[in-house]
This record gives sequence, structure tokens and C-alpha cells, in this order.
Amino acid sequence: MSVAKIRLYVDHPLGAGQSVPLSRDQAHYLFGVMRLAAGGQVLVFNGRDGEWLAEVAEAGKKGGTLACRAQTRPLQPLPDLWLLFAPIKKARTDFIVEKAAEMGAARIVPVQTEFTNSERIRQDRLQAHAVEAAEQCGATNVAEVAELTRLDRLLADWPAERQLMFCDESLAAAPAPAAAPHVPEGAPWAILIGPEGGFSEAERKRLAALPQAHPTALGPRILRADTAAVAALTLWQMRHGDWR
Amino acid sequence: MSVAKIRLYVDHPLGAGQSVPLSRDQAHYLFGVMRLAAGGQVLVFNGRDGEWLAEVAEAGKKGGTLACRAQTRPLQPLPDLWLLFAPIKKARTDFIVEKAAEMGAARIVPVQTEFTNSERIRQDRLQAHAVEAAEQCGATNVAEVAELTRLDRLLADWPAERQLMFCDESLAAAPAPAAAPHVPEGAPWAILIGPEGGFSEAERKRLAALPQAHPTALGPRILRADTAAVAALTLWQMRHGDWR
Repeated sequence: MSVAKIRLYVDHPLGAGQSVPLSRDQAHYLFGVMRLAAGGQVLVFNGRDGEWLAEVAEAGKKGGTLACRAQTRPLQPLPDLWLLFAPIKKARTDFIVEKAAEMGAARIVPVQTEFTNSERIRQDRLQAHAVEAAEQCGATNVAEVAELTRLDRLLADWPAERQLMFCDESLAAAPAPAAAPHVPEGAPWAILIGPEGGFSEAERKRLAALPQAHPTALGPRILRADTAAVAALTLWQMRHGDWR
Repeated sequence: MSVAKIRLYVDHPLGAGQSVPLSRDQAHYLFGVMRLAAGGQVLVFNGRDGEWLAEVAEAGKKGGTLACRAQTRPLQPLPDLWLLFAPIKKARTDFIVEKAAEMGAARIVPVQTEFTNSERIRQDRLQAHAVEAAEQCGATNVAEVAELTRLDRLLADWPAERQLMFCDESLAAAPAPAAAPHVPEGAPWAILIGPEGGFSEAERKRLAALPQAHPTALGPRILRADTAAVAALTLWQMRHGDWR
């Protein structure tokens, strides 16, 4: 039996014998683009029930049904990690969301800083990028993309137990600090990537006053925000996450 | 005195009082786009003499001259690190070159593997991306982009002292190996990112037989080649490079 190569995120319960209805877009993709017919195989996941092998039960132009056969993998929980970043140009913002999803962030939060240029994002479009990245990278869950949130409000109400790895390009010349030794294993974390225009003085003060904040340098060169996001996620995953 | 914000790579010797001729493109950028006039300040670097503050001596539509004033930073050598990758779609190939330059690779080598789809690259266009990334990230030198090279030929003639960190998506489930302990400090290295179509059996055998090769897993998810490039460069810089 050949292994199904197509992976599809579905917002529906999965279990042995479970029938899963397809949306119009999913039907178009499976039957129009990928040319699957009845009996064709797909891997599905919903972020809760792991990954399942499913077969096409009905194939139509505007919809269809899958039938779940067997679980292929259990749910592999993502680390409790948020990625906060200030939206930049569209292509680079899309890229950050795709990369954060691939790198295993559980929640992606676009933040509005004082020097953020872009003031609107399309949350639904970014969420679709996160879904596509999860389908592509073999994850069994999908990062949640939040609505654009003001950084000052987020910091004013920062959860007491959540650590914050705060990447600041003004630290580019500083030596990389060692891993934070006093943080309990398994603590929730967030990574904050500085906006390309830098933080304001008020933002810097607020961050400096936050006891959960860990200023972190990402090498001696000044990285673009999208590079910094992948590099910071790598550093975090190696120190605290599921790359260890 | 305000600090010059514009950074420009020039292929010309730099030193106190040195006069630096500008190309037509550079003149267009400085005088047409950035609106600099005589006396305006620019930071220049050439990959050999560090970074210098220079002033516009002559500004014309088709050219101009800068006069070097003072060295602002010495040359900061890049680690002796190559990044080898199989070219993919144009935007993602551009991205890999930009990111490799930002992350401090000294040499970027597009490689043709058995399963590489793209068979041609524009070396000059990719080199221009590397220059732009160096200007942007504050580096004092520019990564060299090589012509497309066949992987089998490269491996057949692999330099004895150069270590090879070889990132293979088939290792995604394997635990990350510890840093290679027997490699001498300061040894030259290369990172090889697996092509999106995977390696062929012959390529796998050749890599397995190479004593300098270090198979490396990049976490439990399957990363796209562009994500893998940034993640692998981060991992390498933290273990062996200038992020320590």
C-alpha cells in the first residue's frame, strides 16, 4: 500500500469510521487539482486527534466526504510558545507566519508597536498560511494566528508565568547570554522580534521593567525581522523546546 | 555630527583620503533615490579594508566620487563557512541567498543534485542579493556566490579539512546530535541543505562515506529548504561561529 502524500487540515472530529465533510475549497483541491477519486487516500489532522489516514468516500465538484480509516500518528503537542512580531511588508509578514508555523510556535501574534508602519493585517489570510505550513511540514496541529494587538496593552497585562525572549537589534554587538537558568522546565514562553524601525523609548522602558523579559542578541549582524524570527525560534527550540 | 545611514559596497581600495569612483547604478541610488548632494555622508566597505565614512565629493547623473574620511570599523572576518543548497523556486532561492549573507556565510554554493528541478541560476543576480544583504545587515564583507555546481563533483573532490553539516529531512524524527566534539576549533565548515525532492540513493551513499560529514536533524517537523537554511545557520553559529 502506498502512503498517502496529501495532508489536509480539517476542522472536524477524527476517529475510526468517522465521516468528514469537505468544504468547496478542499473538494476543489483534492478532486480538481490533485485529481483524487473515490478510494483515494489523504492524511488528515485537526489539531486535537492526531493524524489519520482517510479515504475519499464521495467526490463532487462542490464538496465531498472522507472516511477515516486508522490513526497514523498521535497528537504531537507544540511547545507553549508564542511568536510576537510587528507586521512588515506583505511578503515578509506572510513569510514570518509560514516560518513560525513550521518552526513550531503555538500562537502567532502580530503586534502594533509605536514604530510599526503597517496598521492592518488580514488575520484570515495569515491563518490560512499557518494551516498550509502545518499541512506541508507534517505537524499534527496548527498555530493560531491572533488579531493585531497593541504591544503596550499586551505588556501591561503580561501573564506572570510566561517568559519573554526579547530580541533587540541594538544588542547586536552584545555577547549572547547563556540560557536563562532560573526558568522552570516547561514554562510557557514568548519570543518578541523587534520592529524594523526599532522600539520606542517607552517600549524599551516597559520591557526593561518586565521581570519575565530575557533580552537576547542574535549575533553580530543586524538581521531583518523575518530572519530574526527563524533564528530566534531555532535558538529557543534548541534551548527549551522540542529540538532537544 | 549625525551618523551616515547609507551603507554601500564598493569594489575599490579604501583608506584615509582615498577617492572612490561610483558606478552609474551607485550614482543613481545615492543622488537620484537617496537625494544625497556634495558633502553628504555614506558608509562604505569593500570586504578588505573595514568600514569607512566617506563624503560625496562629486555628484553627477552618470557617476560621481566619494572621498574616504575615517575608518568607522575594522574588517570583521566572517567564519570560514559555506552554505550549499539546491536552488528552488526563484523567490525562495533569492531568500536563501539573502538570509545566508545576513547569517554570516562566507560562500554560498548553489548545487545541482539528482532531484534538483531548477537547472539554471543567474549567478550575477544572486551575487547582487548578497551585496544588498551585506549593505543592510552591517557586515564589512560580502558572501561570495558561486556558480551552480554539481553536488557529486563537489563531494568527489571534498577538501580534507572542511567539515560538512548535512541537514537531511529524513532525520526529522531523530534526536539532535550533540556538537561534534572531535572537530578542531576554527576548522572550516560547510552546511548542506537537502533538496526539497530529497537526496538520491547514490547521493546518500556518498555522503555516508564522507568522514567529514555530520548528519544533523533540525527538529521534529519537516522544514522547507529556506527555513532549514536559516535554522541550520543559526545552529552552526551558536555552536561554532561568531554568535558564541
